[in-house]
Amino acid sequence: MTVRVGILGLGTVGTGVVQILTDPQGRNPLLKEVEIAKVGVRDLHKPRSSQLPPSIYTTDLTSIVTDPRIDVVIEVMGGIEPALTLILTAIEHKKHIITANKALLSRHGYEIFTKAQAQGVYVMLEAAVAGGIPVIQTLKQALGGNRLTEILGIINGTTNYILTEMQEHNRSFASALAHAQSLGYAEADPSADVEGWDAADKITILAGLAFGERLRREEVYCEGIRSITTADMNYAKELGFVIKLLGIGKRTETGIEVRVHPALLPVHSSLSAIQGVTNAVKIVGEPIGELLLAGAGAGSGATASAVTADLLNLIATRGSTFNPLMGCQHEGYAKVSPLANLQTQYYLRAIVRDMPGVIGEIGAILGNQGVSIRTIFQKDIHDNLADIVIMTQTVREAQFQAVLAEMKHLSVIHDVPTVLRVV
Amino acid sequence: MTVRVGILGLGTVGTGVVQILTDPQGRNPLLKEVEIAKVGVRDLHKPRSSQLPPSIYTTDLTSIVTDPRIDVVIEVMGGIEPALTLILTAIEHKKHIITANKALLSRHGYEIFTKAQAQGVYVMLEAAVAGGIPVIQTLKQALGGNRLTEILGIINGTTNYILTEMQEHNRSFASALAHAQSLGYAEADPSADVEGWDAADKITILAGLAFGERLRREEVYCEGIRSITTADMNYAKELGFVIKLLGIGKRTETGIEVRVHPALLPVHSSLSAIQGVTNAVKIVGEPIGELLLAGAGAGSGATASAVTADLLNLIATRGSTFNPLMGCQHEGYAKVSPLANLQTQYYLRAIVRDMPGVIGEIGAILGNQGVSIRTIFQKDIHDNLADIVIMTQTVREAQFQAVLAEMKHLSVIHDVPTVLRVV
Repeated sequence: MTVRVGILGLGTVGTGVVQILTDPQGRNPLLKEVEIAKVGVRDLHKPRSSQLPPSIYTTDLTSIVTDPRIDVVIEVMGGIEPALTLILTAIEHKKHIITANKALLSRHGYEIFTKAQAQGVYVMLEAAVAGGIPVIQTLKQALGGNRLTEILGIINGTTNYILTEMQEHNRSFASALAHAQSLGYAEADPSADVEGWDAADKITILAGLAFGERLRREEVYCEGIRSITTADMNYAKELGFVIKLLGIGKRTETGIEVRVHPALLPVHSSLSAIQGVTNAVKIVGEPIGELLLAGAGAGSGATASAVTADLLNLIATRGSTFNPLMGCQHEGYAKVSPLANLQTQYYLRAIVRDMPGVIGEIGAILGNQGVSIRTIFQKDIHDNLADIVIMTQTVREAQFQAVLAEMKHLSVIHDVPTVLRVV
Repeated sequence: MTVRVGILGLGTVGTGVVQILTDPQGRNPLLKEVEIAKVGVRDLHKPRSSQLPPSIYTTDLTSIVTDPRIDVVIEVMGGIEPALTLILTAIEHKKHIITANKALLSRHGYEIFTKAQAQGVYVMLEAAVAGGIPVIQTLKQALGGNRLTEILGIINGTTNYILTEMQEHNRSFASALAHAQSLGYAEADPSADVEGWDAADKITILAGLAFGERLRREEVYCEGIRSITTADMNYAKELGFVIKLLGIGKRTETGIEVRVHPALLPVHSSLSAIQGVTNAVKIVGEPIGELLLAGAGAGSGATASAVTADLLNLIATRGSTFNPLMGCQHEGYAKVSPLANLQTQYYLRAIVRDMPGVIGEIGAILGNQGVSIRTIFQKDIHDNLADIVIMTQTVREAQFQAVLAEMKHLSVIHDVPTVLRVV
């Protein structure tokens, strides 16, 4: 029985999907039942490498999502509109959806999933997070016996590439970014990656699935990597840590913590070894303990592998009653724990005027606020300024921010360029 | 709609499953539909920690697999018989099977899966390999778009614990084994683990699923870790490698390679960082590239998590048509590539009489057989005997074995205690 798919968008991922579907030999035999019915593109006259007949292409995307012959719509165009309207229209026309659109799902997931449930269709999203790594399926179909307590990961390949370059080759942020751009790993406007927005989209989705509660994208605390310097990397290394941009979701007594920020990770932790554009997600639960999934987080092939996995699962469940594990059900919005409640260790680098008593003054502020110091050291730089690096014991974010505010008023402090949390 | 399960065996894994099922709060809500109908045990009078009413226990295991009220049989008793007969009887009575029994599946999988297919029931086996790591589901349901070329992993926690102890604490094999036994990580008779048999069971299953072809357990080449010494570990470290027991499946031009043996892994490879009882599986395919899954490979909780995942998938597909991705279909037996065809690098440690010209004699044998040397070094030991360590370039197994046979006849060679392949 043939399954007819319509594909919205023929960029990197769309092209990868077409390559798999038009060359099924040696892959799962169910793929031979797939027929690409229509492919929606912006420009009919652009030269393309795929073997599809020209009549398949159309610029009328609405004609795809309303076509009664089409069973499954694969949305790989990205962006909020017209993707949102097209997906909602497709759902109204009872088509299953496969989407790689994390920005859309993290902001409009509620609307999309509610409508899909009412229409009895699936919205499959393996490709939206961490490329080829089957983390969505693992959360939905493999870990239901567990009470998950934590999900954290390196879920943006661009920033991990930049941080790896800085770490391994002592490049500045600007130089590593330029290098990533020259290789096509970073876009001309890299904000979505380096500011952590892309990772925030993804952790919204992952934490929502892990904890079975909806999360609002705008409640995700988000901090990027622009302020990280090689000096910080070297100090972190001396302390036994590496710096990674992490997406973190955690169940706590005061609600769900969900945040994206650069963090110090112990050098021997499993995520510390993840280099370059590789992604990795660590999931912690009872009784499973820790589970780590790692692989290519982006790119045509890996993401197309995820789209194809979703398509195969749709084919395999055709004509069956709705599979609740394949759906996205949430009981309601999560109570998000305010950042002020976060309890962690902090790394701080201050630039101070190199004079006697500086460490004493800083130490007094920390002590008065009840913040214990784990490590403190001073490194001379130049022009009478020195770096002071402090790592605290575990403390509440609110308490630490109070220390920071007070510290910035000290006349001996020239600047506090870097504050990082420890994971 | 209630799903009634019968559990065969209440050892470590069975107890873990009962714990999850009798405490469903905070886990997937579908678990609330499960009723434990019967639990088959050996001794009714053994004191048990579980909260189940005494009437649930029975020593009559056949009464479980034939009970018309029971929908799913969870086999966690282990061993070949009576497990095989019980599973086949349960399938005849149209019950779905969940099993953690790798020894059984690797030897009698064909019979079991064929009968299951005829009866239209599922045989779920996530718990049979790598504990809580969802590698079976990933192979069956997440990677169908790919042509897989390689699957390799650390799939025996006991041996990885022993090797880690030897590496990190310079313990002998015997001492590390005794330590593992004292912690319950190794059995009184550790043969199944240290000889590689358990890993061979598992790679038979994994490679069969990865390549979509049946494999015969007896065709798996298998070598254990008894001959590994801390001297080898230290030499490997000098060369930039660590020693791990690996299960390996590879698609080659001459057939499927499937083997278990200790191997040298580059120190920075993803599997090298896997310590202690942790398991990890690396899967390589086109277009996904490399995927790594790592987590607890054994133990009550992790394995029970896998059993529960299988149970949830059975509940979620109740009343639906047969899902081909959840089944185990193979088109036939694989052509297994003979070990003689293997092409790899070799590590060899020879104990030689410490006299001039030794390296020349050994080098001549290698050269005559066309085997290039990548590294060779000599370390003095005592009593006029020295260790010579050789790492070759890539060479065919048959060619290397010819060198080895010839070398053993050299009068300067006292012994060749260790030969390892490089991965």
